[in-house]
Amino acid sequence: MNYRIILNIIGKILVIFAALLILPLIVGLIYHEDTYLSFIIPIACFLVLGLPFVLWKPKDKSIYAREGFVIVALSWVIISLIGSLPFVISKSIPNYIDAVFETVSGFTTTGASILGDVESLPRSILFWRSFSHWVGGMGVLVFVLAVLPNSDTGAIHLLRSESPGPTVDKLVSKMRFTARILYGIYLVLTAVEVILLVCGGMPFFDSLLNSFSTAGTGGFAIKNASIAGYNSVYSEMVIAVFMFIFSINFNVYYLILTGHILKALKSEEFITYFCMVVASTFVVAVNILPLYENSFGDAMRYSFFQVASISSTTGFVTADFDQWPALSKCVLIFLMTIGASAGSTGGGIKASRLVIMIKSTIADTKQMIHPRAVVTPRFEWEPIDKKVVTNTRVFFICWFALVGLGTILLSLDSFGNLLSNLIASLTCISNTGPGLDLVGPTCNFSGYSYFSKIVLSVLMLAGRLEIFPILVLFAPSTWKKH
Amino acid sequence: MNYRIILNIIGKILVIFAALLILPLIVGLIYHEDTYLSFIIPIACFLVLGLPFVLWKPKDKSIYAREGFVIVALSWVIISLIGSLPFVISKSIPNYIDAVFETVSGFTTTGASILGDVESLPRSILFWRSFSHWVGGMGVLVFVLAVLPNSDTGAIHLLRSESPGPTVDKLVSKMRFTARILYGIYLVLTAVEVILLVCGGMPFFDSLLNSFSTAGTGGFAIKNASIAGYNSVYSEMVIAVFMFIFSINFNVYYLILTGHILKALKSEEFITYFCMVVASTFVVAVNILPLYENSFGDAMRYSFFQVASISSTTGFVTADFDQWPALSKCVLIFLMTIGASAGSTGGGIKASRLVIMIKSTIADTKQMIHPRAVVTPRFEWEPIDKKVVTNTRVFFICWFALVGLGTILLSLDSFGNLLSNLIASLTCISNTGPGLDLVGPTCNFSGYSYFSKIVLSVLMLAGRLEIFPILVLFAPSTWKKH
Repeated sequence: MNYRIILNIIGKILVIFAALLILPLIVGLIYHEDTYLSFIIPIACFLVLGLPFVLWKPKDKSIYAREGFVIVALSWVIISLIGSLPFVISKSIPNYIDAVFETVSGFTTTGASILGDVESLPRSILFWRSFSHWVGGMGVLVFVLAVLPNSDTGAIHLLRSESPGPTVDKLVSKMRFTARILYGIYLVLTAVEVILLVCGGMPFFDSLLNSFSTAGTGGFAIKNASIAGYNSVYSEMVIAVFMFIFSINFNVYYLILTGHILKALKSEEFITYFCMVVASTFVVAVNILPLYENSFGDAMRYSFFQVASISSTTGFVTADFDQWPALSKCVLIFLMTIGASAGSTGGGIKASRLVIMIKSTIADTKQMIHPRAVVTPRFEWEPIDKKVVTNTRVFFICWFALVGLGTILLSLDSFGNLLSNLIASLTCISNTGPGLDLVGPTCNFSGYSYFSKIVLSVLMLAGRLEIFPILVLFAPSTWKKH
Repeated sequence: MNYRIILNIIGKILVIFAALLILPLIVGLIYHEDTYLSFIIPIACFLVLGLPFVLWKPKDKSIYAREGFVIVALSWVIISLIGSLPFVISKSIPNYIDAVFETVSGFTTTGASILGDVESLPRSILFWRSFSHWVGGMGVLVFVLAVLPNSDTGAIHLLRSESPGPTVDKLVSKMRFTARILYGIYLVLTAVEVILLVCGGMPFFDSLLNSFSTAGTGGFAIKNASIAGYNSVYSEMVIAVFMFIFSINFNVYYLILTGHILKALKSEEFITYFCMVVASTFVVAVNILPLYENSFGDAMRYSFFQVASISSTTGFVTADFDQWPALSKCVLIFLMTIGASAGSTGGGIKASRLVIMIKSTIADTKQMIHPRAVVTPRFEWEPIDKKVVTNTRVFFICWFALVGLGTILLSLDSFGNLLSNLIASLTCISNTGPGLDLVGPTCNFSGYSYFSKIVLSVLMLAGRLEIFPILVLFAPSTWKKH
């Protein structure tokens, strides 16, 4: 293993995070808040830890899959451990493990919170909390690639292990260029959302923070009642539409920008995801109709918002869906499990993996019935590589195994019941946020023990980093000398 | 497709079932019950439907996978549809769909019941109900193979699509001989259990029926309180041990019989399953200790019985485990999902598939970290064939997809809640029987709508026949001319 390149790149990431923390520091100064130490101390920590490794340049710049996985997993762990200090120092979340949970939830764009009353927090802390969604949404490393000047040969491995979904390869042929384009799209879309929200009468600060949360498909709200707190149909619809926009594969926007509009709309993943959202919205709307005095308009409003929120794995709330009938809950849990599109900021298994799974499984079953036939499953109009099928299946299995393991570990806690524990694991690994029952939309995760919070934090990281980097970090063979 | 051979073999199966129905008829006559018509009418149905096809001999005797799947799936459906008539005619279960549910539950050895009061049923009906477990346990086709004189070349396909688990091949080299040995072991073990139960003071009729249920790992009880109704530690322990015995791969007994005791004990599946049961018993016992006034003996007694019952997918009950803490419920649901060993009478995913899944997934993950290494996963001391890995993964995916689909379809019903629906799907596809909450050990399935009962019946069949025959039955390409 090339330890020096690992430390060097992690060092660079830490320095960037020192720089990012300047923003909430400024927010605190603008609003005359007494929180400057809460940011200066972690900035110092990031610099002290990061700078020596940045200066200690490696001779050998080669990076392989293993190094890539380790860099990604370790850097996410370290930024979460230090990034939680502002919460602790400002006494917004006095307990360190609670603060780490909140920070991991932020960077992984989960949005699961242990806070009951967010409205009492200082604005600079609220800013840092929502900003972590925005930073985490696009992936720390994409950011590094976009900003840093030198060209690392192994960067492709890094990006592959961090960007969500199996089909990032098409975009990474010209690494740095692509990373900048991606961040360009991300910035512009976020800015458009802020402007639209401000036009609807939402204060600028709220618009900015809610847009951070939407863009990262995170879900941290700055009102105790989440988006329902604004009680504005216009704001709800803007946010719902943008949740949907940010859960589409950015490749689609890239294709549209470069003039390939037809090719973009022909994307199998886009079509699948779009149909899933539309169909789910209608099913849920019809199912909850009696709860809203048979007003189809109201039912559609709450249904579309919640479907967009859960399928994009954002987790904003405008209705207590824990009170909805079993069918609606089932649909939402299905959407939570599948999650958003690959190459978006959303979490979950991803729509593309679902399509690959369904098509390859049908093909294998057909092969079983007709052993002599030649059956080749296709995705995005091309035959699916056998290696992709294997990887996708292994991913599925690990994902559900982790949900199961998480549920068992949470059962050691006297807090939860079986359903709450299962859905808590599911909502954390899919980076959604709210669950059902004891961790439903009107509740929070503060009731769980510290051990459970650590388990849930690992699940959030595993989900965000698509499992394998976290597995690699725990595998003994990673740390053996070869 | 060779329709004539399909009809011919199904015809033979129907005639055998006409013969099997003579047994409960005799029971009715012995106890002077007024139920003879309840059995004579279905006997007539079986004969009228079956005999013409038995006599209409096919010229072409070749059977391929497709024919095998269709024979298995269709014959199970037909025997369930006709085998439910005794319940309807005797008015024990006046509604036909309820009766079909109960019969499917019997033949698939699930043991999920819609009956609240079983003690009021006539003895001949109780006999038929428990006997269906015993017949279904070993698989109808193994029985046919053991009994019929002529040798079908394609029999291996039939056995493969009916016997549980992926590793039946070793046993099927000498088909008919093996089938007879298997039935021999099955008969002797059942007889030993009956004798042991009678020695403990249980009435002969009860001993016989409970042994049928145990041998088939079914779970239909003849007391309303299931096995708890006998309130005898001795009977409980005999039944618990035999539930465990019948959930072991019969290959192990075959090896012991032929003197290969060491080889039998070295079986990886046996070791895994044994350790799983022992570990689960201890975890659950410690977890439920406070509920039994800290008496470790009592806790072990209830824990061992319930672990053996659920891991073997029998479903007998001596304690209302719905009242146990979340951890115990989690362990039981895990055991229910994995189920018994391949080549046993139990259901679930099977221990061997679990081992293959874990080993192949670890191997694939290692391969990802060390792309140049040669990683070969092994099972039962031999390298795992890639085809087996693919089949096992496809099976896993289909299994969980069916659980999900079942949960969604059950949600259309106003009866259940999310947890009950999920566990109902799980307990039916794993052929266990009792669930949690609304379908917990003290409840039954009568609250579900007819549509839900049909869904659950399909899940039971899919679980019992290891999914693929049922998929094939529904696949349009099966019925196309080739």
